[in-house]
Amino acid sequence: MTTNTILPSFRVAGSRPDVWTMVNQATAECKVPPVSLSQGFFNYNPPKFVLDAAKKCIDDVSCNQYSHTRGRINLRNALSKAYSPLFNRKLNPETEIVVTAGANEGFYSVFAAYLNPGDEVILMEPFFDQYVSNVQMNGGVPVYVPMIPPKEGAERPVSAKEWKLDMNRLRAAITDKTKMIVINTPHNPLGKVFSEEELNEIADIVLEHNLLVVSDEVYDRLFYTPFVRLATLRPELFRHVITVGSGGKTFGCTGWRVGWIIGDESIINHSAAAHTRICFCVNSPLQEATAIAFEEADKVGYWDDYISSYKKRFSILAKAFDQLGIPYTIPDGSYYVMANFANVKMPENYPFPEHILSRPRDFRLCFWMLKEIGVATIPPTEFYTDEDASMAQDYLRFSFCKTYETLEEGAERLQKLNHFI
Amino acid sequence: MTTNTILPSFRVAGSRPDVWTMVNQATAECKVPPVSLSQGFFNYNPPKFVLDAAKKCIDDVSCNQYSHTRGRINLRNALSKAYSPLFNRKLNPETEIVVTAGANEGFYSVFAAYLNPGDEVILMEPFFDQYVSNVQMNGGVPVYVPMIPPKEGAERPVSAKEWKLDMNRLRAAITDKTKMIVINTPHNPLGKVFSEEELNEIADIVLEHNLLVVSDEVYDRLFYTPFVRLATLRPELFRHVITVGSGGKTFGCTGWRVGWIIGDESIINHSAAAHTRICFCVNSPLQEATAIAFEEADKVGYWDDYISSYKKRFSILAKAFDQLGIPYTIPDGSYYVMANFANVKMPENYPFPEHILSRPRDFRLCFWMLKEIGVATIPPTEFYTDEDASMAQDYLRFSFCKTYETLEEGAERLQKLNHFI
Ligand SMILES: Cc1ncc(COP(=O)(O)O)c(C=O)c1O
Ligand SMILES: Cc1ncc(COP(=O)(O)O)c(C=O)c1O
Repeated sequence: MTTNTILPSFRVAGSRPDVWTMVNQATAECKVPPVSLSQGFFNYNPPKFVLDAAKKCIDDVSCNQYSHTRGRINLRNALSKAYSPLFNRKLNPETEIVVTAGANEGFYSVFAAYLNPGDEVILMEPFFDQYVSNVQMNGGVPVYVPMIPPKEGAERPVSAKEWKLDMNRLRAAITDKTKMIVINTPHNPLGKVFSEEELNEIADIVLEHNLLVVSDEVYDRLFYTPFVRLATLRPELFRHVITVGSGGKTFGCTGWRVGWIIGDESIINHSAAAHTRICFCVNSPLQEATAIAFEEADKVGYWDDYISSYKKRFSILAKAFDQLGIPYTIPDGSYYVMANFANVKMPENYPFPEHILSRPRDFRLCFWMLKEIGVATIPPTEFYTDEDASMAQDYLRFSFCKTYETLEEGAERLQKLNHFI
Repeated sequence: MTTNTILPSFRVAGSRPDVWTMVNQATAECKVPPVSLSQGFFNYNPPKFVLDAAKKCIDDVSCNQYSHTRGRINLRNALSKAYSPLFNRKLNPETEIVVTAGANEGFYSVFAAYLNPGDEVILMEPFFDQYVSNVQMNGGVPVYVPMIPPKEGAERPVSAKEWKLDMNRLRAAITDKTKMIVINTPHNPLGKVFSEEELNEIADIVLEHNLLVVSDEVYDRLFYTPFVRLATLRPELFRHVITVGSGGKTFGCTGWRVGWIIGDESIINHSAAAHTRICFCVNSPLQEATAIAFEEADKVGYWDDYISSYKKRFSILAKAFDQLGIPYTIPDGSYYVMANFANVKMPENYPFPEHILSRPRDFRLCFWMLKEIGVATIPPTEFYTDEDASMAQDYLRFSFCKTYETLEEGAERLQKLNHFI
C-alpha cells in the first residue's frame, strides 16, 4: 500500500525529546528572555586572529574544495606540532591524526569502526548525552558507572576532585562483551580533571581486558589543576587510547565543526575509514583556519589568557553562589559549574507542565529558575540513567563560556533566590 | 594481553584501497604533472558573491557557534524559497528540509535512519562509490542493477539517454527484504538525466513495494535537457522520496560540506534524528553563506551562466574527441563525460603494476593515459560489481569542472592518442 509508513531502523526508533529542546522551548515561551547559562557555546566571537585566519582561507582556491579525507595536511602538521610535546612523542601527521567534523563525528567514527552489535561500552554518569545515542546507533550497548558525588555537596563548596568514579562498579561492569570505555577529562558537567592515580586504575583495567578507550579531551586547554592525558601515562596505552579534541572548544568557535582524533596508527586507521564514509572530509576553509589559529595562538600568548579569562568568568558565578550560600563544585577544568540547590525551596503547587513533573527534581528546579529567576541552566539528571539519577537531582549545571556582562547579569538575577532559601 | 590487536567492526573490515588513492598515487609519481580531469572538484574559485557571503558570515557571532541541528533557519528558508517552485509545493522549512554535512552525510543519515541488518538497497551501476560503503556501514546489503550501455557506444557519439536502466533486472531484484532504491539524476558518471517515462516505471515499483528512495540530485542545477524530479511526479511520492542536494556542487565549493535532504516530514524526521547524532550540526558560517548565495544567485543570473559555462567546458573536450574519432556519451546533465577507448591500442607489454593488471581494461587505460598522455581520468569499472564490470571496461570518465585553460591543455595532450588509434 502506498500510504504505509516506512519504518525506521532500530538506531533511531523511540527517541525521546532531549533536554536541549525542552530548555529552548521553555526559554522561547518566556516574556523576559532568561540569561542563558545553559548550552556550552560561546556568546561572543573567537579572537580576531582566528576570524582573520578564516577570512584569509576563503580566498584560497584549494580551501574551497574537498580536502584529504584525513584532514588538510597543514592542520595535521599544526596538530602534530601542538600535541607532540603534550603527548611526549612525535605524532605522525600521516598516520596518527585524523581531522573530524567536530569532536562529535570523531567519536561517532570510532564507535562505527569498532562496535559490533551487542558490544558493551562503559560510560560514566553524568555522561555527555551524544555518547549514548552514538553507541546505540552503532549497535553497541552502553553500560553505566556513576561518579559518586561528594557527601557534603549540599553543605559546602566542594572540589571537583571529590566526585569519585565508582571503581568497584567499574570493575564489576566488565564482561567478555566489554569493548570500550569512554572517559571525559576535563569533565562536562563536573569540571573534574581525572588524577594520575585514577587514570592509572583505569589503565590497569584497560590493559588487562584489552579494551579501547575514547578519551574525550575537548576541554584540554582549560584546566586549573595539572592535567594528565591517559594516552601518555604508559607507552603501551597509545595503542589503546583514542584521544578526541575540538577546535570549536579550543578557539571558541563551536560552529566550525572541526575536531580531531589522535592515537596509534593501528587504532586510527579503521576510524579514519569510517570517517571517510560518513562525511568524506571536513569543511576545508575552517580546517585551514584552525591550522593558522594554532600557529598564531602561541605567538599571541592565547593559551594563558584563555585560562585566566575562564577563571575570572567562574569567579563571577562563584561570588553569586557564595552570597546566597548555595554550595557548588569548584571545577578543575572545563567551563561548567554544578551548583547544589538542595536548600532552595520552590513554592508549593507551582504549575509545572506534565513532562517536567515526570522527571527528577532538577528538571523542576531548572524550569522554575528559568521562569521565575530568569536564568537558564541544564538539569544534569538528563546525563544519568533513571537508576542513578537521584545522585544529581539537587544540582543544576551552569555554563560560563559567556561574556562578563551576561555572567554579571546572571549573577544579579540569581540573588532573587534569596527569598527561597 | 596488552599488545593484542583491537579488532574493528564488520563495518570497516576488509576495505580495499579505492580508485582515488590509486589515481592520486600514480599522479604523484609522474615527472610531468598530468592534467587532472579525474576527481569531481573545481580547480577554480566559486563566484565572488559566494566568497563575499562567506567572509561576511565569519564576522557574525552567531555564525561561529553551533547551529540548529536541522540547519540554520536562514538556510532552510532559502532552500524552501529556491526549491518550493521546483517541487510544485510549499516546502516547510521546519519539517521538510534538513541541512547535512554535504550530500554525503545526508544520504549516510538516511541509511542510518532506515536500514536494519540485512535490509536490501538497490544501487544502479555505475554507482557513486560512497553508496556502497554507506549502505554496508549501516548493515544494509547492496543489490545491483546495471544501466545497459548503448550498443553503438564504440562506434559513434551517443546520447546519455541511450544508457538504459535494466528494468527487468530491477523488477527481478525486488525481494521482501528490499527497503530502498538509490537513484542519481543527473547521473555521475554517465551524465544521464532520467526521463519522465523511466521515473514513472521506477515510481510504480516504489509504490507497489512501499520502498524508500534516495534521489541523489546533487547536479540538479546542471542539465542540458528537461530535468524531472522523481519526488514531484505524483503527490504520493513525496512520502517515499528523500531528495539529496549539495551546496558544494551548486556553488562550486565542494569543500564547504553543506548539503541538504528534502522530503515529507514522516521520512525526514528519522533522518534528522540520525544526522543530529552523527555530527550534531553542520558548520555554521558556510551554511549561512550558502543561504546568502541562494538569494544572490537569482539576482546575478547565476543559474543560466552556470549551465552555459558547462556547455562550453564540455565542448572543449568534445572537440578533442571528435578530432580523434573517439566516441563519447553526450551528457544531458552533470559535469562528466564518458569516452569510449575501445579503438585505442595501448602498446603491448606496457609495464603495468600488479594492482592495475588485476583490474579490468579501463584501469590499464587510465594508468597508461596518465603516464604517457599526461591526462588523469577515472576508470568507471570501479563503480561496477565484478560481475557487470565488462560493460564499462572500454570507457574512461572525464570531469569537466575545470578551468578553460586546464581543459584546453587536456584537449591538446589528448591529441597524442592519434598514434594509438
Ligand atoms: C564532553 C564533550 N565532548 C564533545 C563535545 C562536542 O564537541 P564538538 O563541538 O567539537 O563536536 C562537547 C560539547 O559540548 C562536550 O561537552
Ligand atoms: C552523485 C554524487 N553524489 C554525491 C556527491 C557528494 O556530494 P557532497 O560533496 O555534497 O557530499 C558526489 C560528488 O562527487 C556525487 O558525484
